Amino acid sequence: VADPRVLEHARIVVEHSCKVKKGDSVLILTAPEAHELLIAIVARLGKIGADYVASDFDSSVMRAYLLDADEETLSAPSRITLAAAKEADVMINIGQFTISNSHEMSDIPPHKLQLAYLAMKPVVDIIERKRWNITIHPTSALAQEAKMSYEAYCDFVYSAIIRDWPKMAAEMKVLADKMAATKTVRILGNDTDITFSIEGRKPLVDSGEKNLPGGEVFTSPIDSSVEGHVYFDLPINYLGQEVRGARLKFRNGQAAEMNAEEGEELLKTLMSADSGAGRVGELGIGMNRGINRFTKNILFDEKMGDTIHLAVGRAFPEAGGTNESAVHIDMIKSMKEGGTILFDDVAVYANGKFSWE
Amino acid sequence: VADPRVLEHARIVVEHSCKVKKGDSVLILTAPEAHELLIAIVARLGKIGADYVASDFDSSVMRAYLLDADEETLSAPSRITLAAAKEADVMINIGQFTISNSHEMSDIPPHKLQLAYLAMKPVVDIIERKRWNITIHPTSALAQEAKMSYEAYCDFVYSAIIRDWPKMAAEMKVLADKMAATKTVRILGNDTDITFSIEGRKPLVDSGEKNLPGGEVFTSPIDSSVEGHVYFDLPINYLGQEVRGARLKFRNGQAAEMNAEEGEELLKTLMSADSGAGRVGELGIGMNRGINRFTKNILFDEKMGDTIHLAVGRAFPEAGGTNESAVHIDMIKSMKEGGTILFDDVAVYANGKFSWE
Repeated sequence: VADPRVLEHARIVVEHSCKVKKGDSVLILTAPEAHELLIAIVARLGKIGADYVASDFDSSVMRAYLLDADEETLSAPSRITLAAAKEADVMINIGQFTISNSHEMSDIPPHKLQLAYLAMKPVVDIIERKRWNITIHPTSALAQEAKMSYEAYCDFVYSAIIRDWPKMAAEMKVLADKMAATKTVRILGNDTDITFSIEGRKPLVDSGEKNLPGGEVFTSPIDSSVEGHVYFDLPINYLGQEVRGARLKFRNGQAAEMNAEEGEELLKTLMSADSGAGRVGELGIGMNRGINRFTKNILFDEKMGDTIHLAVGRAFPEAGGTNESAVHIDMIKSMKEGGTILFDDVAVYANGKFSWE
Repeated sequence: VADPRVLEHARIVVEHSCKVKKGDSVLILTAPEAHELLIAIVARLGKIGADYVASDFDSSVMRAYLLDADEETLSAPSRITLAAAKEADVMINIGQFTISNSHEMSDIPPHKLQLAYLAMKPVVDIIERKRWNITIHPTSALAQEAKMSYEAYCDFVYSAIIRDWPKMAAEMKVLADKMAATKTVRILGNDTDITFSIEGRKPLVDSGEKNLPGGEVFTSPIDSSVEGHVYFDLPINYLGQEVRGARLKFRNGQAAEMNAEEGEELLKTLMSADSGAGRVGELGIGMNRGINRFTKNILFDEKMGDTIHLAVGRAFPEAGGTNESAVHIDMIKSMKEGGTILFDDVAVYANGKFSWE
């Protein structure tokens, strides 16, 4: 491993994010292009005295399986994956976002993706109760998606990931404390006026533990309280397929109308995956000032300053969320131009700034 | 997948070798360079309705772990690997031999390799009771090791693997039937005179099931009966490290003297891994006439016509073998020039030909 930033990234994942200790058994989800990061992580696990299995998560391989498998096959969870997840103390996912082609799944019918996603739910449920982290290793495909050179993209990635995470946590706590005292959130902006209750729900501060980069304050709204309409101006990239310009209208907490400028069929399929897939599972507010541009990558985009995101699907039980679903689809909205966030009718964000800035 | 031979290879692995059926859970050991074969196999599993996990077996990753791990860490088996192996119905290993550098482990101390090998024994014991196959996908490193161009090496690999396996099996049965009626085997040749009993042991015909390529008739001698000396003129390549010109002398079944022209320390370390590592676990006779040259790859070399091999370490219980060990180290000897195989004092092979040829 030549780039010292890869070593530092591995240190943050293993020590800060996952707190791996001697004797832990670590399940790593990897991908061919994450090779350098995998080596740096595995070396650190060896030093600590934790064992590991590196499971290959390569979208071109998954595509080959999905293409030829029938619906019954796709609906069955992998028994080996379940057994591995149960045995693991820690799951480090460096593969899922480390793509070599963001459109690798573009010729798989959406309903097959949905079935495969649903089949993973028992595994996701097991992993949620463990220490886990999802992060990325920079690839040319990700740089291309971000419309950047590879070298500039690497700089971008590490400026978002290699941060003073305890200091970041203190900054985010200011917003989280306000959120904890709030009953009703209202979001206004272009073609958007949506209201929901977060009363009794716990705001969570993402300081680089489960996600790297971290940098958001988020909670799970009371999903039955969601009313109004929202326009997501930033594209949603889901397993290599894209939805652009999604508009959702909620009544009594349920997405009653949904359309999109592009990818509407995929959006509708995913949001009808199960009974929780059409309900709000998350409100997030991006706070990572190291992420200063949109790169079409949810792991980064949702942490970007001057954005909010809502996710439909699975809520966070640790935030008090109750909505259940196999899916969790993040949708981001930029707030800098004319967006306002009201906490109990008081603007906590307006005109591109938080109220204390 | 562009090369139709890769598709045919995948078909043989999944259908002929492992007999994968709907509902099977398949553990695949893969490596980055096996990507094309992995895709072809996974597509076939999808079609059949078997699920899979692809576990990454990359020597550069393993090296990073071994380099930094202490002995206690290396001695503990991976709990996740154990759980995955228990759950699997089938194990397909396309990673272990699909190397990108045959010397990747050359700077790891031999005793560390030995500990890692020993730690895998419980996993190997579980897999032995399942359907499994080990095969290869051609790489430039393997071509280089074989002193061949990549294209010529691919031709070599597929001419050894893509065969009429039922027909091969019938050819090998001729030798196996003779072996079944034999009490004592004696092998003569350059610097070699070794004798052992195979009385009551079962000859096995390798017709492309557990190994691809297959093509050997083998059994496990009565290890306590091995007497004499043997010179292995062909190099032994073990996890990227090499032993050349090994000479072993057996007394009462135990390797009493061992030396080598190169790599003697590694040989001694491996053969003292445990109490069974210095005893003969296998006699094999190569019968695959599609393998017409030595390529420094045990999976091919041991099947080559006009060779025999002995392995020290783990015997085959299915042949009636009782020797137990975490290691199984194959050592090959060419027989074409002056080698003789005697079954109960009658030459079954001499002057480069079998007795019925």
